[in-house]
Amino acid sequence: MISIFAPSGIAEIAKGDDLAEIILANCELNDHDVVVVTSKIVSKAEGRVVKLDQNDKDAFEKLVRSEAKRVLRRRGKLLITETHHGYICANSGIDQSNVGGGNAVLLPKNPDLSARRLHQQLVNKTGLVLGVIISDTFGRTWRKGVTDVALGCAGVAAMVDLRGTHDSNGRKLVATEIAVADEIAAAAELAKPKAARTPVVIVRGLDKGLFRPSSITREIIRDTSEDLFR
Amino acid sequence: MISIFAPSGIAEIAKGDDLAEIILANCELNDHDVVVVTSKIVSKAEGRVVKLDQNDKDAFEKLVRSEAKRVLRRRGKLLITETHHGYICANSGIDQSNVGGGNAVLLPKNPDLSARRLHQQLVNKTGLVLGVIISDTFGRTWRKGVTDVALGCAGVAAMVDLRGTHDSNGRKLVATEIAVADEIAAAAELAKPKAARTPVVIVRGLDKGLFRPSSITREIIRDTSEDLFR
Repeated sequence: MISIFAPSGIAEIAKGDDLAEIILANCELNDHDVVVVTSKIVSKAEGRVVKLDQNDKDAFEKLVRSEAKRVLRRRGKLLITETHHGYICANSGIDQSNVGGGNAVLLPKNPDLSARRLHQQLVNKTGLVLGVIISDTFGRTWRKGVTDVALGCAGVAAMVDLRGTHDSNGRKLVATEIAVADEIAAAAELAKPKAARTPVVIVRGLDKGLFRPSSITREIIRDTSEDLFR
Repeated sequence: MISIFAPSGIAEIAKGDDLAEIILANCELNDHDVVVVTSKIVSKAEGRVVKLDQNDKDAFEKLVRSEAKRVLRRRGKLLITETHHGYICANSGIDQSNVGGGNAVLLPKNPDLSARRLHQQLVNKTGLVLGVIISDTFGRTWRKGVTDVALGCAGVAAMVDLRGTHDSNGRKLVATEIAVADEIAAAAELAKPKAARTPVVIVRGLDKGLFRPSSITREIIRDTSEDLFR
């Protein structure tokens, strides 16, 4: 059985805050827990907050473009961009909600690295086998609405590759690489009370075989050459 | 707290099987449980299984095309199609794994309707407040790997619309329609042991406010006119 819960009581995060310490002060972790953390608090702790020039009405769009490799589509104020990391998302993932003061929060510079650092700190402090996922909320090409996905991960698989294994009729399974890190991020979102500050969610009870070194960049981001729709 | 578990012991499903009865024989439901059922067993119960002509090497592709409104892209044997329902997926969602005997399983004709029927039967038999989601495994445009999504739903929201609500700094949230049914389907996948037959998963402990009439077709499928990438 999997259980998912969001510790309450985590205060506003500021530059330089020690996320590992804050997480451990607010919940008791078990072996094989996955700690799902919003990219926003990782960005805030890392100081990835930019003050927008209030006199420049294009300030936000300039920022979006500066965080992008390219713009794929535009609709009104919405730009669909490919970020320098290789994520394809709205407005380069830059967020103005829950910030205040004309500030905008950029995505972490290297979410896999941020996940690895937090993972290392949590493991050092607890001695447990853990996973860390850094999540954000992305739209989808063919379906309305947003879901949470994994931007970075450490200690827990991004992808489980079932190619070469067999189904229960002995037929070889093809094209069955399951993006478990994205499923874990989506599952974590369900445990958040809406319009409350719950930037950390614990997912407990996942298959122990999932706990291994991992990377969203390496396992999940689709290379342009394999891309059918860009 | 949310908990997710997969009842074991559900046998192979055949045409005409009473899924509600089979589900209730294999697990005890609580108020506000969501029952996530793979589209494959719904299709099998509804008789949506086709025998492929072994003498026609194009039989599978013909079937894929017959289930599609249009073909969006092709790579080798893989066709990305828009199904008659409006889903965009690989090979019109037709599945040959876990079937046997040269058979292929089509998607249910109307997954929302299948969900509503199963929901009504479960509610009638138990008197509980329940949700039903019919799930399948789809790829994503910009990310590798597959995740489970909702093809049909009943009794539990497909989408939660937070537009017009405010974040914890009082800033109005925009573009925040969360596709909860897809997140529930993804979460359910995590509870399935790989390469085992676990076509039913129970998701327990979701926000009670999510339980209401719903439809994937109406809430999640993106109208062609809003589509930036087709």
